[in-house]
Amino acid sequence: MDAKDRILDEKYRFAKELVAEAGDFLRQHLHDDLEIEEKTDFTDLVTHLDRQVQADMTQKILSRYPDDVIYGEESVNLQPLNQGAVWVIDPIDGTNNFVAQKTDFAVILAYLEDGQGQFGLIYDVMNDELYHGGGSFPVCLNQEVLPKYEEKPFHQGLIGMSAGLFHQEKPNFRHFALQSLGTRSYGSAGLSFCHVLTGRLMAHVTHVYPWDFVAAGILGQPLGYSLVRPDGSQPTYEGREYLLFVPTSKLEEVKGYLSQ
Amino acid sequence: MDAKDRILDEKYRFAKELVAEAGDFLRQHLHDDLEIEEKTDFTDLVTHLDRQVQADMTQKILSRYPDDVIYGEESVNLQPLNQGAVWVIDPIDGTNNFVAQKTDFAVILAYLEDGQGQFGLIYDVMNDELYHGGGSFPVCLNQEVLPKYEEKPFHQGLIGMSAGLFHQEKPNFRHFALQSLGTRSYGSAGLSFCHVLTGRLMAHVTHVYPWDFVAAGILGQPLGYSLVRPDGSQPTYEGREYLLFVPTSKLEEVKGYLSQ
Repeated sequence: MDAKDRILDEKYRFAKELVAEAGDFLRQHLHDDLEIEEKTDFTDLVTHLDRQVQADMTQKILSRYPDDVIYGEESVNLQPLNQGAVWVIDPIDGTNNFVAQKTDFAVILAYLEDGQGQFGLIYDVMNDELYHGGGSFPVCLNQEVLPKYEEKPFHQGLIGMSAGLFHQEKPNFRHFALQSLGTRSYGSAGLSFCHVLTGRLMAHVTHVYPWDFVAAGILGQPLGYSLVRPDGSQPTYEGREYLLFVPTSKLEEVKGYLSQ
Repeated sequence: MDAKDRILDEKYRFAKELVAEAGDFLRQHLHDDLEIEEKTDFTDLVTHLDRQVQADMTQKILSRYPDDVIYGEESVNLQPLNQGAVWVIDPIDGTNNFVAQKTDFAVILAYLEDGQGQFGLIYDVMNDELYHGGGSFPVCLNQEVLPKYEEKPFHQGLIGMSAGLFHQEKPNFRHFALQSLGTRSYGSAGLSFCHVLTGRLMAHVTHVYPWDFVAAGILGQPLGYSLVRPDGSQPTYEGREYLLFVPTSKLEEVKGYLSQ
């Protein structure tokens, strides 16, 4: 193993510790009185715990790797994702579930070097399930290596999609949804991506920021999933965008449904 | 305790055994090759395990209580629900989840005497969580007594509602949904009702048959929830109907949203 691989291995182990610590912290503070702020409207919430978890993770990363860059949901100034060693943090994915349900939320962390995904982690905090790997690492749920996508038709599978995306006219996600056995909506993009990785869902359609999706893209690629825009192109990584997480073998079929 | 109460107590204990046995059976056969039939369309499925579980439960009930009546999802002839001692069975609620996800499905059982709910049971099979009680019994999740509904505004809570119900024009459930923190869709009416009982959801809006909802109505009443049609009236118990499971204290507010 050369020095570069050794450092990457160490960063991967460190990343797993970081999300485990963040999860412990959130479980300990689950029933604290929350300071809740609205961002764009009353359904777009942030709590003091989102900010604190990101601050803690940032401090730990930068004290160990001072030259690395942080790209986080609660960051004020965002650096470009495709230059240098970048850690992408979503301290609480599914904040509304965290606030209203006390379950179905995730800590998400991804690591890129010059725009290339090295590994991703999505931690289902309340179920203590860590999805991790990608790049040069096997994709696992906790200790178990996840199998690759196995071909089946959409009419035998479910699609993760919010009611809002089903309802809207453009892009016409509804036509795609109606090819399937039904839609499900869990309120956490991270966990919905994980349900695709385990085969519970065949696809996830969503409207997300880079901190929500970068880890999933890294985790999905080796298992046969692609994360693309409705026209099949790559994410722009600029702000919020519509994305589909679908079996790579079905990309053309899905583009067909969306163009109708 | 008089003889009538003693028999009811015995029936309640028996009912808990029945759903536990049904759950064991389903977990044992989770990965069997399924014989799947379409009922009304390709998203409306029944498997040989739905039929077998209902047949087993029916046989056990009638061999012990030969004068009682069975009202089940997979029954051919349905007797009226409001006469005599009636057991209402949904052998697998969330059959599509059972088929496609191998999780998020329930066994549901309710017991009525002359139309009065005596107890209800909803068993989340894969999480081994039994919601049970109502009538003269405390409402519990496994051994724990569930607290009553605590007042909060809809904009702080989530509503269980499928994408299809959100999208349709009449009844205008969307206007109600938009008062809340968001909608969630889990693909099992039984489990969505349970999420209301535990406070994870503030309401569940659904389009269901009696075997899906009778148990929830019995469980919800003592905790401060009502199961009503969009105009606030009682269920007809005739075929599939739109129903809302909402805090009783919020019925008038909800009717206001739905009439707009």
